[in-house]
Amino acid sequence: MNILIVFAHPEPRSLNGALRDRMVATLTAAGHDVLVSDLYAQGWKATLDGADFPAEPEGARLQLTDASHRAFASGAQTPDVAEEQRRLLWAHAVILQFPLWWFSMPAILKGWVERVFAHGFAYGVGEHSDRRWGDRYGEGVFAGKRAMLVLTAGGWVEHYAERGINGPMDDLLFPIQHGILFYPGFSVLEPFVVYRAERMNEERFRAITTDLDRRLERLFVEEPIPYRRQNHGDYEIPSMRLKEGLGAGKQGLRLHRA
Amino acid sequence: MNILIVFAHPEPRSLNGALRDRMVATLTAAGHDVLVSDLYAQGWKATLDGADFPAEPEGARLQLTDASHRAFASGAQTPDVAEEQRRLLWAHAVILQFPLWWFSMPAILKGWVERVFAHGFAYGVGEHSDRRWGDRYGEGVFAGKRAMLVLTAGGWVEHYAERGINGPMDDLLFPIQHGILFYPGFSVLEPFVVYRAERMNEERFRAITTDLDRRLERLFVEEPIPYRRQNHGDYEIPSMRLKEGLGAGKQGLRLHRA
Repeated sequence: MNILIVFAHPEPRSLNGALRDRMVATLTAAGHDVLVSDLYAQGWKATLDGADFPAEPEGARLQLTDASHRAFASGAQTPDVAEEQRRLLWAHAVILQFPLWWFSMPAILKGWVERVFAHGFAYGVGEHSDRRWGDRYGEGVFAGKRAMLVLTAGGWVEHYAERGINGPMDDLLFPIQHGILFYPGFSVLEPFVVYRAERMNEERFRAITTDLDRRLERLFVEEPIPYRRQNHGDYEIPSMRLKEGLGAGKQGLRLHRA
Repeated sequence: MNILIVFAHPEPRSLNGALRDRMVATLTAAGHDVLVSDLYAQGWKATLDGADFPAEPEGARLQLTDASHRAFASGAQTPDVAEEQRRLLWAHAVILQFPLWWFSMPAILKGWVERVFAHGFAYGVGEHSDRRWGDRYGEGVFAGKRAMLVLTAGGWVEHYAERGINGPMDDLLFPIQHGILFYPGFSVLEPFVVYRAERMNEERFRAITTDLDRRLERLFVEEPIPYRRQNHGDYEIPSMRLKEGLGAGKQGLRLHRA
């Protein structure tokens, strides 16, 4: 199968770099084709701005959604964006790998999402009517593909537990896993998280890479996170509220797991 | 009082630009001193990388936390970062203003946080012992200052409600409000959110700016979000779990509001 790793760490000699190399080796040895988009090494432009839309008339007011739509539809995107879209379409699974900085992905990776997930490609697609509200949350361009986060965090696992002060990792990652990955159709696997990343030694590294290998072995068979699909009866349309009686006893973000 | 607006939209003629101008006018008319860090206009470097640490030996492995600590401690930061830190220290209140892109802040603003919130400045400060776990979550460099998000979202308010498909706005913003703002000591006010930002007209704009003016009038008197402070008895140390019996009936991120 085809696997795209989007890698967002500035130092190849880091723990993240070592985990990336390990993933490439493990996946390749298993017979997969692997591509790495190494955002720092590629000098990825992190900022979404007017330069992303070279065909827009100069001096015109920049309306991002419209400009993105026109650029995607007419093939007027910048070559770096078009190449990442081709890689995403080629991939059967996508791994976003990054250090958790300030409880989210690094800016360079967020900018990859903002620029590559164009209007008409990853959002703003499908029928909008009384029955459907676009192809999103379980449908969309990436339907049938799998996605997984592989990340490192400086803090302890306890600090990210259900009652931990940072908030549960699943809730902190919801904007990424549900809002960025599930939204355009990916089946999202549970994340692979390395805690206390700055306290690494040989023994821990061996244990972690063994666990990671096991996760990668099951990349195409593991059950994805059971996020509720938008257009399959769980939500009122167009208010997009979860229907009465569903999610009993749950609060907040966990309502959206079936 | 001194107010810093950190503005992250590429188009000054946008709704965000109009709201920014309105805030500057309203706050100035009320006698405040206002500075705007206009990240796009300043050409803000969004990506945290080795170039941020010019005093590090060339070719050395980049360890970001250590490099950030040394650069901050020795005055070897880049001038753009040092200037933003000065502005933050000058301010009595900080407003982060941005369009919500993919359920979080734009990359350029995330990169502002990553570069400006240095180790020894906004994190990695204070005593770490059996009694305290650093000055964070309610303590830290920004203690006594206020912060507020002002943001626009394309979706409907219902989609961000308690049972809305996107997830409750408060939960989506938790990594920013709790993890980026409360962590280094800010008192965080409820956000000001404009929904359906792409369906604007004169009448809605008048109503929105009237509401915004009211919020700004109360910038220094409004009750902040009652996030629980780390070192004041609510959490076990060092596991940082919320103590048994607190937060009864609550789940997930809302456990951390008193």
